[in-house]
Amino acid sequence: MAANLVKAGHEVTVYNRTPGKVQALVERGARAAARVADACQGDAVITMLADDAAVEGVVFGETGGVIGSLGEGAIHISMSTISAALSQRLAAAHTNAGQRFAAAPVFGRPDAAAAAKLFIVAAGAPDALDACSPLFAAMGQKTIHISNEPPAANLVKLSGNFLIASVIEALGEAMALVGKAGVDGHRYLDLLTSTLFTAPVYKSYGALIAERKFEPAGFAAALGEKDIRLTLAAAETLRVPMPLASLLRDRFLTLLAHGGEALDWSAIGQLAAKDAGLGDPPSGSRG
Amino acid sequence: MAANLVKAGHEVTVYNRTPGKVQALVERGARAAARVADACQGDAVITMLADDAAVEGVVFGETGGVIGSLGEGAIHISMSTISAALSQRLAAAHTNAGQRFAAAPVFGRPDAAAAAKLFIVAAGAPDALDACSPLFAAMGQKTIHISNEPPAANLVKLSGNFLIASVIEALGEAMALVGKAGVDGHRYLDLLTSTLFTAPVYKSYGALIAERKFEPAGFAAALGEKDIRLTLAAAETLRVPMPLASLLRDRFLTLLAHGGEALDWSAIGQLAAKDAGLGDPPSGSRG
Amino acid sequence: MAANLVKAGHEVTVYNRTPGKVQALVERGARAAARVADACQGDAVITMLADDAAVEGVVFGETGGVIGSLGEGAIHISMSTISAALSQRLAAAHTNAGQRFAAAPVFGRPDAAAAAKLFIVAAGAPDALDACSPLFAAMGQKTIHISNEPPAANLVKLSGNFLIASVIEALGEAMALVGKAGVDGHRYLDLLTSTLFTAPVYKSYGALIAERKFEPAGFAAALGEKDIRLTLAAAETLRVPMPLASLLRDRFLTLLAHGGEALDWSAIGQLAAKDAGLGDPPSGSRG
Amino acid sequence: MAANLVKAGHEVTVYNRTPGKVQALVERGARAAARVADACQGDAVITMLADDAAVEGVVFGETGGVIGSLGEGAIHISMSTISAALSQRLAAAHTNAGQRFAAAPVFGRPDAAAAAKLFIVAAGAPDALDACSPLFAAMGQKTIHISNEPPAANLVKLSGNFLIASVIEALGEAMALVGKAGVDGHRYLDLLTSTLFTAPVYKSYGALIAERKFEPAGFAAALGEKDIRLTLAAAETLRVPMPLASLLRDRFLTLLAHGGEALDWSAIGQLAAKDAGLGDPPSGSRG
Repeated sequence: MAANLVKAGHEVTVYNRTPGKVQALVERGARAAARVADACQGDAVITMLADDAAVEGVVFGETGGVIGSLGEGAIHISMSTISAALSQRLAAAHTNAGQRFAAAPVFGRPDAAAAAKLFIVAAGAPDALDACSPLFAAMGQKTIHISNEPPAANLVKLSGNFLIASVIEALGEAMALVGKAGVDGHRYLDLLTSTLFTAPVYKSYGALIAERKFEPAGFAAALGEKDIRLTLAAAETLRVPMPLASLLRDRFLTLLAHGGEALDWSAIGQLAAKDAGLGDPPSGSRG
Repeated sequence: MAANLVKAGHEVTVYNRTPGKVQALVERGARAAARVADACQGDAVITMLADDAAVEGVVFGETGGVIGSLGEGAIHISMSTISAALSQRLAAAHTNAGQRFAAAPVFGRPDAAAAAKLFIVAAGAPDALDACSPLFAAMGQKTIHISNEPPAANLVKLSGNFLIASVIEALGEAMALVGKAGVDGHRYLDLLTSTLFTAPVYKSYGALIAERKFEPAGFAAALGEKDIRLTLAAAETLRVPMPLASLLRDRFLTLLAHGGEALDWSAIGQLAAKDAGLGDPPSGSRG
Repeated sequence: MAANLVKAGHEVTVYNRTPGKVQALVERGARAAARVADACQGDAVITMLADDAAVEGVVFGETGGVIGSLGEGAIHISMSTISAALSQRLAAAHTNAGQRFAAAPVFGRPDAAAAAKLFIVAAGAPDALDACSPLFAAMGQKTIHISNEPPAANLVKLSGNFLIASVIEALGEAMALVGKAGVDGHRYLDLLTSTLFTAPVYKSYGALIAERKFEPAGFAAALGEKDIRLTLAAAETLRVPMPLASLLRDRFLTLLAHGGEALDWSAIGQLAAKDAGLGDPPSGSRG
Repeated sequence: MAANLVKAGHEVTVYNRTPGKVQALVERGARAAARVADACQGDAVITMLADDAAVEGVVFGETGGVIGSLGEGAIHISMSTISAALSQRLAAAHTNAGQRFAAAPVFGRPDAAAAAKLFIVAAGAPDALDACSPLFAAMGQKTIHISNEPPAANLVKLSGNFLIASVIEALGEAMALVGKAGVDGHRYLDLLTSTLFTAPVYKSYGALIAERKFEPAGFAAALGEKDIRLTLAAAETLRVPMPLASLLRDRFLTLLAHGGEALDWSAIGQLAAKDAGLGDPPSGSRG
């Protein structure tokens, strides 16, 4: 994503806790920041981090955090998959500090990010989003302005991962059922994905489940569990019962309880088969 | 489907309990049968009926049923969505009677049937399926030979409806969540269906849920409930726990308990919103 | 139960498919019947059998079944745990045959039956139940006339087993939780059962779960699965969603899929611990 | 509880945010504290508050909190129903401050507290618990030393509320089932509670469900929701999937989404009947 910003002609200063990780970007024309504060001197700062704690650490850090370093009127664009609650806190904190805030999480795997093909779900004040649009254009194939309230974008992102995990669970149960009846998994998937379920998620996750190939992880189970947890937390605040999300939570906990943190999150799609007495329990050691 | 057989040049004799229903086919060149037995005099007989009971009635009827009327070596092609257990019984009964049997349920809505664009999931002995192939070619755009065991095709068909109902439930929960947070349902669906969830089922059922438009039914909730019930019955026989299917069963029962039999089955996608205190309970009276 | 009838002075004729099983009763004063019909010559006949199929076989058997053999006005007392639907069919069939019918399933383990300490849940026409009362008094410590409609008694019996299975599941989850936190299972149970949960079911099933002692079975998992299945079947007919019963169904299927038919039904109480990564999967081989 | 300490001869200093609430205790011989710190001058301080936030406020308050005010070696006895995570933090903070800590949540309703009939679940270092034993003896009928780790007591307390809520859910489903079949709810409860389910929880909650009497609340639904949430949070940390707890969570959210915060938590026992189309939706306005 940063490389695409550089390529589009923006001046980019990059910071990463692990200095070596920015080297490739520096070679393409970015500047390396020694501290978070050094990356906050422009018109906008983009955060793309693993979870709420990482974002909180970078933004609210006592000295040299984003809040303490960003100029008046400058924009913090949060592109991480974080909780709606933290997004709300960030929006309030930036407003208090005379800064602007936009939530802009993305859909797309690493290869889509590299190709500037991300889908960007943006929420924030219209003027802030307008100001961000050249940046979004450099990173994604499409930006959807979903709401004026930043947390809405984070909620939509979480809900998207909930929907994907639902597909994994549904496929897992269906494949356990027909598999136990003797139907070949690949033939079954060919049928599904050439007829009703042509979306890429069915093809890609169906294949992983059929082949029981959960390593290396495209998206780790520990992150999947986190996103379902954040979905349920938002649902609790909003008082929205989500029984399917609860089922997914239990699936992820079962997977993690058996050492599956580092497997691809589609490994929850094996649990129905396991409960049905098919094959082996999931484990970190299975290739 | 019968019209497409006629159009392809096959000699077709049609029977329906309600004589008026065959009139349009007769005008296109089919012959009308006065009794079931009269429709069993050719090389193959196709049954396409609402449920197990209807198929049992027509096939095992004491006098003049399909079993009693079909010639030696002739084929019964069962295209209804019936239980795997009945499919097994039919296969055995036809074998005992010196006849052949193929299960060939279809995926596709009425307009796909009219346009000969159905997907046909066929299972049975290879020689029987070979003999059926001109008929399948006249009715569908693609035939997948999924197994030599007829019940497998019925199970695959049921599992397909389970997967669709899973999509409805997942969308219902996600839309209740983001909707209660103030996100516009149509904008949300546009985002989903233009990015990760491009499959037609997301577009069509998402729109019905967003508009709360469950009448007229494309596929009635009572039939959806039946298919989930048959899925769970097969899962029980095979000992495959399917917690998502159990959730769907409870959703359908809730809908039926409130008078929703005749609504489109996507009306279960409103129940998450109802539990979240959004809008009104589903009922047969809402347009 | 039969022994208690003999002891109370009733003339008792007993039939069992396995002749040796009636020997002990004959020694106490009962007469042995060679055929079902021979046991249907008195004022009342009591059936106590394993499942619906066994009861159907004995009652509707073409020649010499209960329906065909029982005298006019005589009463069939069905004490088995059968489906509400079969109870309804039996009631109708006996009425058609000029006979009377009462459903009278029981609560209590084999030792309670031997000690005439059963609780009898009776339903049927008041005159029929009045006529049965000396028999009930000989077998149980208390008879509750729950309804005039026989299926209601069967439904109540099934609901009782659902409630017990719910206790097992709840204990299983709670013990997995505190157990994984290091709390001793027996100390935990002592606490629970000496305070809020003094009912015997908590003591007896809690101890089995804490000790993982599921053999020999007091009540086999296969029977437990059957009762939950019949509960859900009745719930479906009545359109009552029961998500906890659905969960129990999935637990039993998981247990049976791993070969646990013959274990005590409380073995479902181990599945939460198994999902949490504690201990071994359930199997028929563990003592 | 404080009154029972006074009665037993202990010197008691009481603090409550609402000064009027301590008046009755002062009349019995307690001293009123003007600030939290004034109540921390003795050998032990007991906290009994509504939730985690209240306990955190009182203990970690910048000036005059329990941590800042308690003498060296003095004991903080936390009797509130709080999270295992907070209990862990409290234990660490008191150790750091040279103080001692015991978790001692209780089972029992307000009348049991008044009668010194509480069951106290205590966890902490043996020396701390020994020192507390005269206090426990003054307040409860029995103290169970469940673990040396304070959070274990909080987890056990939470699990107890989970078990009670499970009883409510199971009764709710069973009563919806037999109720829709026409069985009288009170007669059904008499049967259950005089046979297998003699524990008081079945009698008391069953009666509330049968009478749909959820006001005034003995224990408010909002608190029930909190306890299930804390149970699930602990289960997530420990990686213990608890599908029944997840179901209860969804039930509570449904109730709260319909304005039921202030109803008795047994009001979740009406939701199965509501889903089955029996009666009205739960609301705060129904007596």
